[in-house]
Amino acid sequence: MFGRTEDVVMLDADERRLAWVYLSRVVAGPCAALSALIEQVGVVEAARAVRERELPESLRGPTEKRRGTYCPDEDLDTITRLGGRVVTPDDDEWPAWRMLGLGQLDPGRDADAAVPLVLWVRGPLCLLAATEQAVAVVGARCSSGYGERVTGEIVSDLAARGWTIVSGAAFGIDGAAHRAALATGGATIAVLACGVDRPYPAQHDRLLTQIAETGLVVSEYPPGTSAHKHHFLARNRLVAALADGVLVVEAGLRSGTRNTVKWARRLGRPALAVPGPVTSASSVGCHRMIREGEALLVTRAEEVLDEAGPLRLSLPETRSDDENLCGDEALVYAALPKIGSRQPADLAGQSGLPLPAVRATLPALELAGLVGCDASGWFRIVRKPR
Amino acid sequence: MFGRTEDVVMLDADERRLAWVYLSRVVAGPCAALSALIEQVGVVEAARAVRERELPESLRGPTEKRRGTYCPDEDLDTITRLGGRVVTPDDDEWPAWRMLGLGQLDPGRDADAAVPLVLWVRGPLCLLAATEQAVAVVGARCSSGYGERVTGEIVSDLAARGWTIVSGAAFGIDGAAHRAALATGGATIAVLACGVDRPYPAQHDRLLTQIAETGLVVSEYPPGTSAHKHHFLARNRLVAALADGVLVVEAGLRSGTRNTVKWARRLGRPALAVPGPVTSASSVGCHRMIREGEALLVTRAEEVLDEAGPLRLSLPETRSDDENLCGDEALVYAALPKIGSRQPADLAGQSGLPLPAVRATLPALELAGLVGCDASGWFRIVRKPR
Repeated sequence: MFGRTEDVVMLDADERRLAWVYLSRVVAGPCAALSALIEQVGVVEAARAVRERELPESLRGPTEKRRGTYCPDEDLDTITRLGGRVVTPDDDEWPAWRMLGLGQLDPGRDADAAVPLVLWVRGPLCLLAATEQAVAVVGARCSSGYGERVTGEIVSDLAARGWTIVSGAAFGIDGAAHRAALATGGATIAVLACGVDRPYPAQHDRLLTQIAETGLVVSEYPPGTSAHKHHFLARNRLVAALADGVLVVEAGLRSGTRNTVKWARRLGRPALAVPGPVTSASSVGCHRMIREGEALLVTRAEEVLDEAGPLRLSLPETRSDDENLCGDEALVYAALPKIGSRQPADLAGQSGLPLPAVRATLPALELAGLVGCDASGWFRIVRKPR
Repeated sequence: MFGRTEDVVMLDADERRLAWVYLSRVVAGPCAALSALIEQVGVVEAARAVRERELPESLRGPTEKRRGTYCPDEDLDTITRLGGRVVTPDDDEWPAWRMLGLGQLDPGRDADAAVPLVLWVRGPLCLLAATEQAVAVVGARCSSGYGERVTGEIVSDLAARGWTIVSGAAFGIDGAAHRAALATGGATIAVLACGVDRPYPAQHDRLLTQIAETGLVVSEYPPGTSAHKHHFLARNRLVAALADGVLVVEAGLRSGTRNTVKWARRLGRPALAVPGPVTSASSVGCHRMIREGEALLVTRAEEVLDEAGPLRLSLPETRSDDENLCGDEALVYAALPKIGSRQPADLAGQSGLPLPAVRATLPALELAGLVGCDASGWFRIVRKPR
């Protein structure tokens, strides 16, 4: 009896997956009207309605061109051959809370203001876990040496603290951000405006392969889809949605990053920008965003996390364990309670160290990301399991 | 009878001047308690009270050390020999409205929060006229090549538009600001923390001499006074008070410019800061001030004037007259009314030029500082008499 029920559930799951994949191919991108229909009647019924053209007027246009193309099995074969998978809202891996904001935007204002139907994914990381602590780092295609250097420094620091770097795999700052994350052994996610089988830009073929090997390459467009101008704007909303904040390192006067920043603001994510020389064309966009209150000025990873991070940061990857501690550091760390906080004077009593030694040791532990401090005193920083 | 009255007025004026000068020597700097006494009983009576020690407790301390030093005639001889003068609140040249804010601050919070008793001045400019349109440009002593270059560019633009540059004659940004103003043939004011006869820093002797030849060297300290640490903080308030806004080009982490910015904010003057590379220690202070909302990010002269300037800017010095105009520029300029504004279409009708030619000509006239534009249309910019 149980086996039978499980079979039905499995069949139902398969049917739903095929429906999601079919619809993803039909609309190829965000479609608020289709999302609304799915919400109303369920994905299987929505897929049937699309195939049989039993549709409200608002959905005829967006579905007409490809509703006859029914090839979900093929699409699933393709993505499997690529070593990838499709992640649907039915999957445990679906980053549901990241997508909440997109579903709450007004689609009347912007046709892209919709949750993606599915996400096509290549790479070993779990999409949900990898986006739990993530910062989007984007910027000018025509970046300067300064911009690339600063991107490298900030991204390395963020990645070393366990933050995932989300970007768009474009030339310039995007590429520098992915590369710095990879170099630090951190997690990075490239969100594409084409199918995950398409290396775009072509010169980033190797970079995208590397990202797919250790991080994630993500797209809402089915395999085989080419990058279109319009896709980039829709892609930017996913970059913003998948992260806790958007950091712009460099941006020219008419930069596409402004669009990503706009999405961040609409989604309630902090938008941050790095200043640069006022003599550099690559920083003009950042300065304007800061000046006009669209983005907050930041100069280093700590300031990014002040805005995008939770109050208590996770343990940096570079310092794997408190067991590495010795001397005063070990004594002071041991004197800290597992839960709650303690004042330096109490730590001195507990550890047997003189107060000045405790005071000198705490900042070192803090720099190592092992302890933090607030009005209530000093506390251990608990490392989140990945 | 009239002659007699004039004599009395003259005598009275002399007596008052001697009283101001005597008190300036006695307190050597701002003294809110003395300013209050002068307001109550007048400057002559206040001077008598100080000399004879008929004083409230609050004034005994600040006046005790030098109340016996009565040498106003000597001081006036000295400043005259230096080719300078003393400017008192009785003089037409006194920048009364610039000083209003200082008199309204709470002296209980800060002993320096007072109007200077007098200003000792060297230089050919009228202090009142020269501070009518003025921007303070200050910054790090340890400036970078970048900072000096940006200072030069912004100051040249401001000076060319007829704005006076106020600064503190220090090494680094201050010096670069004065030099750029001098090089552009603009007006510049150095506010010192010592007597105007003291070259401070000594290496700026020549610079200060140049400023005294074409601009103004100003101090509230009587001739002969050395620079003391405390004087610099009091001097900073005058730098802020004498200008429409304070621009910081570079500032280190523990920069004295933050004090000038604090005064600007207390006086309701906009505080502005130029960003720079986040990799430069000389920009750390600017970034912090922008980040913490203490200063607004600006990148060029236009943005400085957006904040510190009036709606309609004065004619730049570089373009002396509309008589220099020829061709379309002359026709379009002539078509503009002396008072009020006009739309491009009307200007086309008035000038006989085709509309596209008018549209192309207006921005050139605007760049030359001859015309401006707002919601009501285009208008002539009237040059202020100096």
